[in-house]
Amino acid sequence: MPLAPLPPVLIEPIVRAALLEDLGRAGDITTDAIVPSDVRAQVSLAARQAGVVAGLDLALMTFRLIDPAITASVVRVDGSQVAAGEAIATLEGPARGLLTAERVALNFLCHMSGIATATAGVVEAVRGTKARVIDIRKTLPGLRALQKYAIRAGGGANHRFGLDDGVLIKDNHIAVAGGIRAAIERARAAVGHMVKVEIEVDTLEQLAEALTFDIDAVCLDNMGPEQLRRAVALVDGRAITEASGCITPATAGAVAATGVDLLSMGWLTQSVPALDIGLDHIS
Amino acid sequence: MPLAPLPPVLIEPIVRAALLEDLGRAGDITTDAIVPSDVRAQVSLAARQAGVVAGLDLALMTFRLIDPAITASVVRVDGSQVAAGEAIATLEGPARGLLTAERVALNFLCHMSGIATATAGVVEAVRGTKARVIDIRKTLPGLRALQKYAIRAGGGANHRFGLDDGVLIKDNHIAVAGGIRAAIERARAAVGHMVKVEIEVDTLEQLAEALTFDIDAVCLDNMGPEQLRRAVALVDGRAITEASGCITPATAGAVAATGVDLLSMGWLTQSVPALDIGLDHIS
Amino acid sequence: MPLAPLPPVLIEPIVRAALLEDLGRAGDITTDAIVPSDVRAQVSLAARQAGVVAGLDLALMTFRLIDPAITASVVRVDGSQVAAGEAIATLEGPARGLLTAERVALNFLCHMSGIATATAGVVEAVRGTKARVIDIRKTLPGLRALQKYAIRAGGGANHRFGLDDGVLIKDNHIAVAGGIRAAIERARAAVGHMVKVEIEVDTLEQLAEALTFDIDAVCLDNMGPEQLRRAVALVDGRAITEASGCITPATAGAVAATGVDLLSMGWLTQSVPALDIGLDHIS
Amino acid sequence: MPLAPLPPVLIEPIVRAALLEDLGRAGDITTDAIVPSDVRAQVSLAARQAGVVAGLDLALMTFRLIDPAITASVVRVDGSQVAAGEAIATLEGPARGLLTAERVALNFLCHMSGIATATAGVVEAVRGTKARVIDIRKTLPGLRALQKYAIRAGGGANHRFGLDDGVLIKDNHIAVAGGIRAAIERARAAVGHMVKVEIEVDTLEQLAEALTFDIDAVCLDNMGPEQLRRAVALVDGRAITEASGCITPATAGAVAATGVDLLSMGWLTQSVPALDIGLDHIS
Amino acid sequence: MPLAPLPPVLIEPIVRAALLEDLGRAGDITTDAIVPSDVRAQVSLAARQAGVVAGLDLALMTFRLIDPAITASVVRVDGSQVAAGEAIATLEGPARGLLTAERVALNFLCHMSGIATATAGVVEAVRGTKARVIDIRKTLPGLRALQKYAIRAGGGANHRFGLDDGVLIKDNHIAVAGGIRAAIERARAAVGHMVKVEIEVDTLEQLAEALTFDIDAVCLDNMGPEQLRRAVALVDGRAITEASGCITPATAGAVAATGVDLLSMGWLTQSVPALDIGLDHIS
Amino acid sequence: MPLAPLPPVLIEPIVRAALLEDLGRAGDITTDAIVPSDVRAQVSLAARQAGVVAGLDLALMTFRLIDPAITASVVRVDGSQVAAGEAIATLEGPARGLLTAERVALNFLCHMSGIATATAGVVEAVRGTKARVIDIRKTLPGLRALQKYAIRAGGGANHRFGLDDGVLIKDNHIAVAGGIRAAIERARAAVGHMVKVEIEVDTLEQLAEALTFDIDAVCLDNMGPEQLRRAVALVDGRAITEASGCITPATAGAVAATGVDLLSMGWLTQSVPALDIGLDHIS
Repeated sequence: MPLAPLPPVLIEPIVRAALLEDLGRAGDITTDAIVPSDVRAQVSLAARQAGVVAGLDLALMTFRLIDPAITASVVRVDGSQVAAGEAIATLEGPARGLLTAERVALNFLCHMSGIATATAGVVEAVRGTKARVIDIRKTLPGLRALQKYAIRAGGGANHRFGLDDGVLIKDNHIAVAGGIRAAIERARAAVGHMVKVEIEVDTLEQLAEALTFDIDAVCLDNMGPEQLRRAVALVDGRAITEASGCITPATAGAVAATGVDLLSMGWLTQSVPALDIGLDHIS
Repeated sequence: MPLAPLPPVLIEPIVRAALLEDLGRAGDITTDAIVPSDVRAQVSLAARQAGVVAGLDLALMTFRLIDPAITASVVRVDGSQVAAGEAIATLEGPARGLLTAERVALNFLCHMSGIATATAGVVEAVRGTKARVIDIRKTLPGLRALQKYAIRAGGGANHRFGLDDGVLIKDNHIAVAGGIRAAIERARAAVGHMVKVEIEVDTLEQLAEALTFDIDAVCLDNMGPEQLRRAVALVDGRAITEASGCITPATAGAVAATGVDLLSMGWLTQSVPALDIGLDHIS
Repeated sequence: MPLAPLPPVLIEPIVRAALLEDLGRAGDITTDAIVPSDVRAQVSLAARQAGVVAGLDLALMTFRLIDPAITASVVRVDGSQVAAGEAIATLEGPARGLLTAERVALNFLCHMSGIATATAGVVEAVRGTKARVIDIRKTLPGLRALQKYAIRAGGGANHRFGLDDGVLIKDNHIAVAGGIRAAIERARAAVGHMVKVEIEVDTLEQLAEALTFDIDAVCLDNMGPEQLRRAVALVDGRAITEASGCITPATAGAVAATGVDLLSMGWLTQSVPALDIGLDHIS
Repeated sequence: MPLAPLPPVLIEPIVRAALLEDLGRAGDITTDAIVPSDVRAQVSLAARQAGVVAGLDLALMTFRLIDPAITASVVRVDGSQVAAGEAIATLEGPARGLLTAERVALNFLCHMSGIATATAGVVEAVRGTKARVIDIRKTLPGLRALQKYAIRAGGGANHRFGLDDGVLIKDNHIAVAGGIRAAIERARAAVGHMVKVEIEVDTLEQLAEALTFDIDAVCLDNMGPEQLRRAVALVDGRAITEASGCITPATAGAVAATGVDLLSMGWLTQSVPALDIGLDHIS
Repeated sequence: MPLAPLPPVLIEPIVRAALLEDLGRAGDITTDAIVPSDVRAQVSLAARQAGVVAGLDLALMTFRLIDPAITASVVRVDGSQVAAGEAIATLEGPARGLLTAERVALNFLCHMSGIATATAGVVEAVRGTKARVIDIRKTLPGLRALQKYAIRAGGGANHRFGLDDGVLIKDNHIAVAGGIRAAIERARAAVGHMVKVEIEVDTLEQLAEALTFDIDAVCLDNMGPEQLRRAVALVDGRAITEASGCITPATAGAVAATGVDLLSMGWLTQSVPALDIGLDHIS
Repeated sequence: MPLAPLPPVLIEPIVRAALLEDLGRAGDITTDAIVPSDVRAQVSLAARQAGVVAGLDLALMTFRLIDPAITASVVRVDGSQVAAGEAIATLEGPARGLLTAERVALNFLCHMSGIATATAGVVEAVRGTKARVIDIRKTLPGLRALQKYAIRAGGGANHRFGLDDGVLIKDNHIAVAGGIRAAIERARAAVGHMVKVEIEVDTLEQLAEALTFDIDAVCLDNMGPEQLRRAVALVDGRAITEASGCITPATAGAVAATGVDLLSMGWLTQSVPALDIGLDHIS
């Protein structure tokens, strides 16, 4: 199934806010002063680096909200590989609108494509294992839905979208509850039947204890490959296993080879470089 | 003069939106299920890497909006250096609120401190020259005010905040206008007296022509050190000089040594890694 | 663990919007004209029917947002039983604010307590079985978080909060996918590890087929007690069982006796009568 | 004159908010995973019970905001009777959008049609008298404009829309003012000439006193039919008479027969069951 | 009864928006650069012209939202006369906040006091007659509630707050309806019992016809004093009489002397000069 | 270059808010009751006074948001002179929408055209000098972008749009800083290279001192023509000169004749009368 787009009703407020942030109270004073309203242009959104596209819907909506007369022709949809120098889309319309919307459109596209590209890189690094690459909640404020969509565009999957759609029991919860059993039982008793429960453990002893209770997933925090391998063996299919903490693109392959189900990486949404995409004038 | 804080009235809507993005429709179901409402805790926001702090006001407001009973003691204000392992602030209050607000607070603090730290690194690299390090409009949607504040926290300065508070004439504007003279004259005629006019040039010929008109600044795009040096000599103090395009921390020193006034780097807001900051439980 | 309150940051925008809806452009013209600003009063929020309280935080915030000088003393917290004639809380402060906020505060409290009371009635009806009472997505626009909280206050649990926090495969999904297997496999492949998958079935044949795939829960739609009993036997603990469709308080006991895990009732949020609560003047 | 629709500019923000409440941060993960984007479908919004339609504009806008390619054909406009099994409208378009928007659209339509149907029932019960059926301010937060519109769709009329568009003097106002005269005079002096003044009375003595001052309407609170009859005689056309308090569909006829002008019922907006309407797949 | 304040919940969003409009994305860069955070100051809001105060609550909230440490002492409440040179309030607190909030606070205060002062001037001009001075819907977008409040502060009263809280039948309505009778009857049939009906007439003939139907008020449009006198005689107390159109402060007395109940003036909200109020530094 | 329009994305939220302010919770009850939905009409927006048009985009968007079936034909674009009695635009469509949107559309158009007309009057008064007419930050809350656009439509230019896009050092800043030098130096050090620095001076002595530092503009506050002339001579082209304070249309010519570059007038946005524009029914 190809990547499903984000609903327009969800992205439109974000695009409008981004445009207002850039337009301020006077709009694009440079373009308004220099470019006559009847000049038209054709441009392309062109990748300057190879990567995976994400955020094209937001970029195109940016142009359309500035001027509905701008039309677009899509070359590479979200989730596609794009080579350096290739066009992702071409746009045609009033030159003013194209110039005014350019930066905001690219800000969406470069950031989201950066995430998709980095994700795809890790997905590639773990190819041949069963491990999936997932994000966590280390996202940039206001951009979570977009960032997690970009993870999917890159071939990754999503961990929780927020504090409300899954239970993740961490060390502090265990400490306050007075133990793993109490923490898990309280969580199970409180939440609905569509909510999964995951618990974070640091040691194999904690893991062994956690497995005696009703859990859906275990987050194996900051374990090395050898310890992960033993953890996976201990779990023996009774829970989904997530390796977490300090995983880099360089170490991802080794981590995945331990047999864990998931590799989670906050880096993908918190520290990822943008993909270099620019706007080229065709005519 | 120390760094001035962002007005609370400006950051409060951003913090509220970030919290709602994480709380969803049901709030922190893990903590609500496990942690009794009367348990109190003391925690610290602790740097796991050395860096420069930015975003502490947002982090603290995050905790206060979740529970006004949480009190904070600030150790390192925004703009300060913090060493690995050092606390930036300590917080005390109901454990529930501390756990619920943790991730959103850190998302602000890690991202903004990442920018401040990277900026400070480039500032350090150009020490001894007159060059200032500045951002551009390659920012993340919705976060521009915060990112540009973080640039200041790191010792940098800000380029335009949006399309409306300065004229920046680029190649496409010149092409449409039919030349440098027309572009500058149209801009000058249209804008108010508090608006500066900068023009982007790719060659020394363009630069020479631009200098014959009334401009405040020139953006020297994608020029190497030697070409920059000649550009600076050509300008001879008649305009502010900004070096732009592909400047990295590694090359910043050499670029600054050419005598330019400003080094602008989109990387600082678009591709910067977060500073690793965590929440440690003291008691 | 007692019922956890909704975060203030989540309910404040809803309370503010409700007040603005009632105040319009001129505010409470009756009270402003008649009641001097220095008159104080003491009032109670008093149940005129027995029931279960929910929404008190919203009611109290309504008064405080109208006048921070109003103080409250809580007698029955959310989730408590209240007898007819009993006070839920008493309030003291400027009479103007008490009168102006009264209706909006009661609108929250009566509606949410109505849901909690109805839920508690069904919970009582199924006592002695293992069945839990749950809501569905038949909620009133804009009020889902509050209504689902009220379900919890009445002793119920929550089904999905929205389209995004769980997979629920219905007949139309199955039809489009070309079968149960394809529908379940596509869903599993697309979603993250914290997402549960439930499938709605109308017949035991469908149920038998669904159980051969990886599902977390089955929704047994519009089945009578005898059919439910057979369904539960067929499932034999391999999935959570939800009975759904046309369950009333009168039939809930019989349905629960079939051994299903969950009874879901859209009626609880879509058609429930308010609990009659009024504001009594003490002095 | 047929029922006038609510302005789109007024309902669009409510529909958008309802969609966002349901879509959350990831959208309809079930449909996105299972239904290919090119599958089309034809569906009908079909009444499963007889009733009066209200909210169709909101339902149709819900579908259109999810996918503008969805087209609708209206069979029963708001205010129409619909029989059990009849279609209210048919829709055609991408199956994804139809499935994703279904629940939110129905939530508007079922709730508002429930109000219209209940209102029409009471209107029918008072047929042959001059009495009109009206709502009060016991509405659900955020939904007042929609609920009061549904009252009109059912053949009822509206009392005040808020605290600002009419004076309604209640017992507490009278008590603080020190009497009926003072309360009425203060209100008249304070408000503009387009504002009507109504006073709530519990006894015929209060009524007699109120009638000696300049009032537009009297609310006869909690009076039985015999007392209402005497009140109507006492008023003798000098004010509009509203019977209020504990009126049920069963007692409405008797109350209306007393000759009062208005029957107000908070139940119509606070406690009314939804009309059962579903989405049927035609193809 | 003194003027009732606008509810804080109603004015706070307006004040916040006004501050954000002025602060932009970087805040008060002048004050932040020059004024150390620990400098305190005492200032007064001082009238430079005699007038009537309105908007002080908004002004003070502006300062408090910028810095809660700013305290105020009120000298002249809204609705009070203030002489040239007199202080309306004094403020004490951090100098930064006082300087940053100054302009926005004064923008509220000067505009609203301008309206109150102009209104009071007309009220004075009609003293000795029974005429009240009222506004109409010629208000500035987004400021209606504030402007209509300022009218009250000046001793005036309010016409409709919007299209929804009163019926005003104008010439175009009559033309479309096919006559005065049809227009009035349709309006009466459609609206609730708390809604008054006013009709605008241009001639005595229209007036005579309108008076044969059930109307609450007549708007006598663009009539001279003599015609108004005859109109008032014709009405003979059967409806409220509003003189409208081209009334100036200079002609108000003569218009009022005709015996009309109301003088409506769009000028008071659409074209009124600000009252000159400044911020003086005491220390 | 003709006047550039404000971006739709910037004005749409303002128009929507203005419509909601007028529609309230029930919409245009007069028109809905009287005018059948199938009646069409043709109207014109007609100037009743000569003036300069501004705000037509907002007026037309108002009609379109009420009913997209309304079409417009523009006769006089923003910035054009219009004679008394001339049409600015004609509109055709459903009569209901035309009547419902009329007042809000005119409120934008009359206010903004009032500003443009007043500005054009002052521009005319200074014709033959080099002086430009500019606004300041004495604007009406929420309307700054529109008012400053109207200034441009009238041939004026804009001073700062907010506290964040230019440094303006006033007497209080100088006092706190301990002198002109410190104030200017602190400002220069803090702000970016695209920010201009202006200083307000009351005397020639202050001016002389200010000119010894790096400033872009001087605001000559409350100086008479003779003093202004000497100031201009003293500046001698080293800074832009702005005359400010108590300049009226009557004195503008004399002030401009002193050779200053700019005349700033708060009156243009704070106290300007509306241009009288009405809606005429053509058919």
